[in-house]
Amino acid sequence: MREVAVIGVGITKWGEIWEQSLRDIYVETALLALQDAGLDRVDSMLVGSMTPGLFVGQEHIGALLADYLGQKHIPAARVESACASGGLAFRMGFIEVASGISDVVLVSGVEKMTDVGGDEATYALSTAADQEYEGYHGLTFPGLYALIARAHMEKYGTTREQLAMVAVKNHRNGALNPHAQFPFEITVDQVINSVKVADPINILDCSPITDGAAAAVLVPADRARAAGKSVIKVVGSSHASDSIALAQRQDITWLEATYRAGKKAYAMAGKNPQDLDLLEVHDCFTIAEICVTEALGVVEKGRGGAAVEAGETDRDGRIPVNTSGGLKSKGHPVGATGVAQVVEVVQQLRGEAGGRQVKDPRVGMTQNMGGSGASTVCHIFERE
Amino acid sequence: MREVAVIGVGITKWGEIWEQSLRDIYVETALLALQDAGLDRVDSMLVGSMTPGLFVGQEHIGALLADYLGQKHIPAARVESACASGGLAFRMGFIEVASGISDVVLVSGVEKMTDVGGDEATYALSTAADQEYEGYHGLTFPGLYALIARAHMEKYGTTREQLAMVAVKNHRNGALNPHAQFPFEITVDQVINSVKVADPINILDCSPITDGAAAAVLVPADRARAAGKSVIKVVGSSHASDSIALAQRQDITWLEATYRAGKKAYAMAGKNPQDLDLLEVHDCFTIAEICVTEALGVVEKGRGGAAVEAGETDRDGRIPVNTSGGLKSKGHPVGATGVAQVVEVVQQLRGEAGGRQVKDPRVGMTQNMGGSGASTVCHIFERE
Repeated sequence: MREVAVIGVGITKWGEIWEQSLRDIYVETALLALQDAGLDRVDSMLVGSMTPGLFVGQEHIGALLADYLGQKHIPAARVESACASGGLAFRMGFIEVASGISDVVLVSGVEKMTDVGGDEATYALSTAADQEYEGYHGLTFPGLYALIARAHMEKYGTTREQLAMVAVKNHRNGALNPHAQFPFEITVDQVINSVKVADPINILDCSPITDGAAAAVLVPADRARAAGKSVIKVVGSSHASDSIALAQRQDITWLEATYRAGKKAYAMAGKNPQDLDLLEVHDCFTIAEICVTEALGVVEKGRGGAAVEAGETDRDGRIPVNTSGGLKSKGHPVGATGVAQVVEVVQQLRGEAGGRQVKDPRVGMTQNMGGSGASTVCHIFERE
Repeated sequence: MREVAVIGVGITKWGEIWEQSLRDIYVETALLALQDAGLDRVDSMLVGSMTPGLFVGQEHIGALLADYLGQKHIPAARVESACASGGLAFRMGFIEVASGISDVVLVSGVEKMTDVGGDEATYALSTAADQEYEGYHGLTFPGLYALIARAHMEKYGTTREQLAMVAVKNHRNGALNPHAQFPFEITVDQVINSVKVADPINILDCSPITDGAAAAVLVPADRARAAGKSVIKVVGSSHASDSIALAQRQDITWLEATYRAGKKAYAMAGKNPQDLDLLEVHDCFTIAEICVTEALGVVEKGRGGAAVEAGETDRDGRIPVNTSGGLKSKGHPVGATGVAQVVEVVQQLRGEAGGRQVKDPRVGMTQNMGGSGASTVCHIFERE
């Protein structure tokens, strides 16, 4: 397999984007990534999107978006793994370049979620759960993560305040991200007193409904070197799955797919959790970030809440987590999230993260998750 | 890149399968492929499915089906390219094995289309068209292909009878396929006098709405050799795209994506159309088979209809096309079709195609198409 590097990234302002369609958002973002890469043609493209069929009545977006981007005739595929669709697109692109099948691959994620009403969006998202055993019985994602949060609090003594602190930290980072949907700070009191969604989860524990896209260009590392830019290599790539239904898991506080994907990515990269200078994880709900940091081994099992409280995952802490603002503050256009995580890590490793720049990072990791953790895609990046 | 071979295939009876769910159909079919391969564990799996969100309210089927198959924890991805989703899954699996990322990859396609009513199914399928420029103005797929058929008749003198002969030939083959949804013969008169759908397309020119799945197991060719079975190598793999909206094409009788994918697959395999012993193509409507055989160069441009009339594409003709019965007689569970084409070619190359066996074929090709031709995936197979 060939060494692979990210040569360009692009992201646009996320939010409720009523004046642009899915195809407009995609093209604007993809062009930024191509511009950053200094390229105007690609050999192949992959788009991660969870359910454009339910959100905008359009499937077959691979070919559609290739055409609108002016890249008609190239291989153009959509991939889906619920909210891990973006990470999956990145991984498939990585495999394509590593294999030698393609030299320049554009990977992206896109979701246009606000063209439908709130009930329809909740239904569309619920199709990532096990519909026969969860969805049809009324469980939606806030409910699923509330079950996980309650179990974590019972088992490890995680507090309501610690959950809130995840949101507070991520908003503190997101306030410095010009692309974030909600670029402002919040307080623990505000989180705890915000509208209840599914006890113990309040509205400010939840990532929002968002329109947005993110893109990255992958090439063989040699080609990135020749281009004379910072070479950000993809040194680890992994994907793992688990039972979708929570009822089928041994311990709902433990994200087995994330644990397994993390382990594989570390092994492939020859790294361990202590080598990471920053980490972007899937904080769809505050409890998710806590469970993910435990499963990836960056904090001890059960200590996820305590680590946030101690400031270990702050931007200037032992291991900065979600310097982008995370899904919580930056927004969560589901299929786009995994690629946006890559954009943040690449910008940090290049030293281009502006006000939220971590001091001289060399190794970064992304963890993108589908459903209540049944799919996880991880990547590890290293600056040469 | 490593040489890749198909070591196992599986398909079940297609039709209106009301007593089984999507997950049941998938598991039954995947187990047949694993049994055929003599394996009980896989490293990774890819599922092609067009829109399980709209058909059965369930996205995220990669992880779900891995779990139900007893393969929990493996990387499990869904890919989509409308009706070319199955072919795309096969191609992604090919790339995974060729790259060295995985040794044993299970690829499959599945669609459960009859759990919704006819109007909802028509809507779900229409999301493969350009919704903003076609779907929302009332165009559905029979209408799109009727435009293509009318133009082909005008430009090349293709006759109504020639269109019907495609269906007659494919039903003649399908009558010998135990998995076909409609395993019986029909006549030109029956096609011409069947219910009008969109002039000149009648109901017997259309592939049906179908529930079904198909699966194949890919391994490095060395491993297939060691297993002591017929080694069916994947010698060509390609994917190409085009504008989705017919209005944006220069000539709607010409399938540019199919032409380009065919050219790439021939080049990769070092073959030309004359080397093919059989061909499975995407006859979603009778006119589609005519246009595809022209774009792949197995018949001269404009002669697709005349070639069918002359019997050139019959099972004992110059180049047998759709010995399986094609989408027309075998059925068309959209995401499954591309993998079912592979199943037919592999069974033919192994000499296991029963009553529809072609005499001693060595090289076969599949062509799987999305929308009105905006996506095409081709593969060429060779028996060692």
